[in-house]
Amino acid sequence: MGQVRAEIVAVGTELLLGQISNTNAQWISEQLAKYGIHTLYHSVVGDNLERVSNTFEHAGKRSELVFVTGGLGPTDDDLTREAFQIITGFHLIEEPASMHKIEGYFKRANRQMTLNNRKQARIFEGAYVLSNEVGMAPGMIIDYDDTTWVFMPGVPREMKHMLSTVALPHLKNKLHLNAVIQSRMLRFIGIGESQLEHDLKKLIVNQDNPTIAPLASEGEVAIRITAKAATKEIADDMLNQTEQEILAISGSYFYGYDEETIEQKVVSLLKESTRKIAAAESLTGGKFMDKMVAVSGASSVCQGGIVCYATSVKQKVLGVSDQTIKTHGTVSKQCATEMAENVMKKLDASIGVSFTGVAGPDESEGKKVGTVYIAISQKGSPTVVKEYTFSGDRETIRNRTVKKGYELLWQQIKKNYESAR
Amino acid sequence: MGQVRAEIVAVGTELLLGQISNTNAQWISEQLAKYGIHTLYHSVVGDNLERVSNTFEHAGKRSELVFVTGGLGPTDDDLTREAFQIITGFHLIEEPASMHKIEGYFKRANRQMTLNNRKQARIFEGAYVLSNEVGMAPGMIIDYDDTTWVFMPGVPREMKHMLSTVALPHLKNKLHLNAVIQSRMLRFIGIGESQLEHDLKKLIVNQDNPTIAPLASEGEVAIRITAKAATKEIADDMLNQTEQEILAISGSYFYGYDEETIEQKVVSLLKESTRKIAAAESLTGGKFMDKMVAVSGASSVCQGGIVCYATSVKQKVLGVSDQTIKTHGTVSKQCATEMAENVMKKLDASIGVSFTGVAGPDESEGKKVGTVYIAISQKGSPTVVKEYTFSGDRETIRNRTVKKGYELLWQQIKKNYESAR
Repeated sequence: MGQVRAEIVAVGTELLLGQISNTNAQWISEQLAKYGIHTLYHSVVGDNLERVSNTFEHAGKRSELVFVTGGLGPTDDDLTREAFQIITGFHLIEEPASMHKIEGYFKRANRQMTLNNRKQARIFEGAYVLSNEVGMAPGMIIDYDDTTWVFMPGVPREMKHMLSTVALPHLKNKLHLNAVIQSRMLRFIGIGESQLEHDLKKLIVNQDNPTIAPLASEGEVAIRITAKAATKEIADDMLNQTEQEILAISGSYFYGYDEETIEQKVVSLLKESTRKIAAAESLTGGKFMDKMVAVSGASSVCQGGIVCYATSVKQKVLGVSDQTIKTHGTVSKQCATEMAENVMKKLDASIGVSFTGVAGPDESEGKKVGTVYIAISQKGSPTVVKEYTFSGDRETIRNRTVKKGYELLWQQIKKNYESAR
Repeated sequence: MGQVRAEIVAVGTELLLGQISNTNAQWISEQLAKYGIHTLYHSVVGDNLERVSNTFEHAGKRSELVFVTGGLGPTDDDLTREAFQIITGFHLIEEPASMHKIEGYFKRANRQMTLNNRKQARIFEGAYVLSNEVGMAPGMIIDYDDTTWVFMPGVPREMKHMLSTVALPHLKNKLHLNAVIQSRMLRFIGIGESQLEHDLKKLIVNQDNPTIAPLASEGEVAIRITAKAATKEIADDMLNQTEQEILAISGSYFYGYDEETIEQKVVSLLKESTRKIAAAESLTGGKFMDKMVAVSGASSVCQGGIVCYATSVKQKVLGVSDQTIKTHGTVSKQCATEMAENVMKKLDASIGVSFTGVAGPDESEGKKVGTVYIAISQKGSPTVVKEYTFSGDRETIRNRTVKKGYELLWQQIKKNYESAR
């Protein structure tokens, strides 16, 4: 069988009220991708017989494989079976093993079983039963026209267990799935999404297998490359080849793979070069150091920092000279430079980084909101200081400042480290 | 206008790969419910021109109001405009204000604007433009046949801001919505969800209108009360009455309303009592101070702090005595006490708070992962120091520590402040 096109229908009014997010669809899509099944649509419909059956009809027309979650429970608004019956005319029968299990549950709990609980044991005649090991209602797989339908409970824990242990193994045989899909994320910083896409345009346009997909996130860009092949080894070789082509063009912005963060990368580089860092933070208020301390193992490279939010702390604790503050103000290259150099010395570190600027909402010292200075001082090198203008609200400006700090630090350490080798 | 039936279409392959969940649909549904708009369907479709236009066509046939998120960005796989054009034939024009903004962004960032960025400023002729205050691509509202279409960016931050500030106010007028559903969130800290629910059981069981719904979140609990009435005034009166009943029972844990955070509450209390705070942070690495600096206006109460991650920083910069560290270790009541008292003095503050503990993954100084000490020193009062044991991974322990710090601080300031009046 070639490419299988799937869709996922979630049944349940609670999803439409905004009480919960349809995380089931996300999780199922992720599992299917591993089997080479492409999910083309997600939909959510409420507990209304007509709307559910219309949604099923539409899904059956456009997809070869439809996963339905929810609506299999005991209450009157569980309508998945009835809606499917409307379009197929299939007969419902009571599944003995499931019925036995439900009766046993009420017996053990010493509770009277209400009649509506029998509903849960009903399956379509001829369906492949998906036993529910962690709940009551069984799921089922059944064909209609050219579509394979997979019905599962809406409770995430029950659905996940059923999909992994019984539904996917059955589908793998039934649909002869044998392709292997491997995917890899390449992470870049210091270049915008549109610029990176522009630089890689030739590669992206000619993409087919592997596919190349850029994804922007705050302050950085990732590229997901995905290959399909008969074996994992072949797929990995294809990914290696594509990765080389991408890095030959944009390698200088590349910092890591998959879930790696720029903070982790900086911590590993510091570890490798056995250096220790300290930070002086004004507008970032401790956010830079917090993100570094979040990395497990940061203790071997991270001395700490001084959050010098008030001017008096910059002067008295950090030792920024009164003259600098009087002449240039606290939001200045000069102040940033002294902050980075002094925090390095005071905290016995080999690298000092500093952040000063205007997070807003109001201007400060005649400097516009978003004006930021970042300085990096390294033992034996001249201090590097840069000016930036960030847009956004207070928190966005502070986040962008920290991200830019990691970007700058990564570039500086890399440069210093490489030239030392 | 009577009952409005809406649906939400999300465009973006990343949602179908299982990388992210469609939280936008959840959030929009929740907002619409407040205006009495019922969401009947959610759908997700990938970045494929034919499938997006088919999905739009289907949505237009069954719903009077369609919200579309995503696909308005600069890259080649942003196809929302093109797909809508296929079914409507509407003309696209460049919106001058948005174009101006995009150009300004690149100019300020000192970056070359690639051509594909112009795409983002295109709107349909005659559309009502939804300006994007926190990003680049504008949204728009336009009618076709009997359906009103609302297009918004897929980035949650941009979409949320646009929906709340410009799209919903416009729709309220346009669709003559006269919803009178009022809701209010009451925020509690220092009490668990089940305890609060137990204490309020009588009220909750008898609820009908207003409804009372407890919602747990990390380290605190909120209660949403929602009233339905003929006018806003009547609904508000009903909410006031219910609020009084709730606070008569659990008022001592109540700190604020709606989106207010415990950090904001602490900042206002410090402002009112004209006091200044400083923090000494070990395992929290600056997170406590960062959260305070995030509050606009924190500068009038926040001196700064010392991130004393390394032991040498605790000793040399903060002045914790060698004897204390030798006898009790850095993870101890004694060390926390000295940290809080010293940071208060060193940074000229009237309150000092400190955090020391083991965030993991490994034990430290023979203390188990999750052992945490928090101390609060106030001028003219004895220092308060508490021991906690938190569970979870490194980041969870650090987050819980900071939250507990704010809870403790709120209680202490409140006590001190109230006794001074």
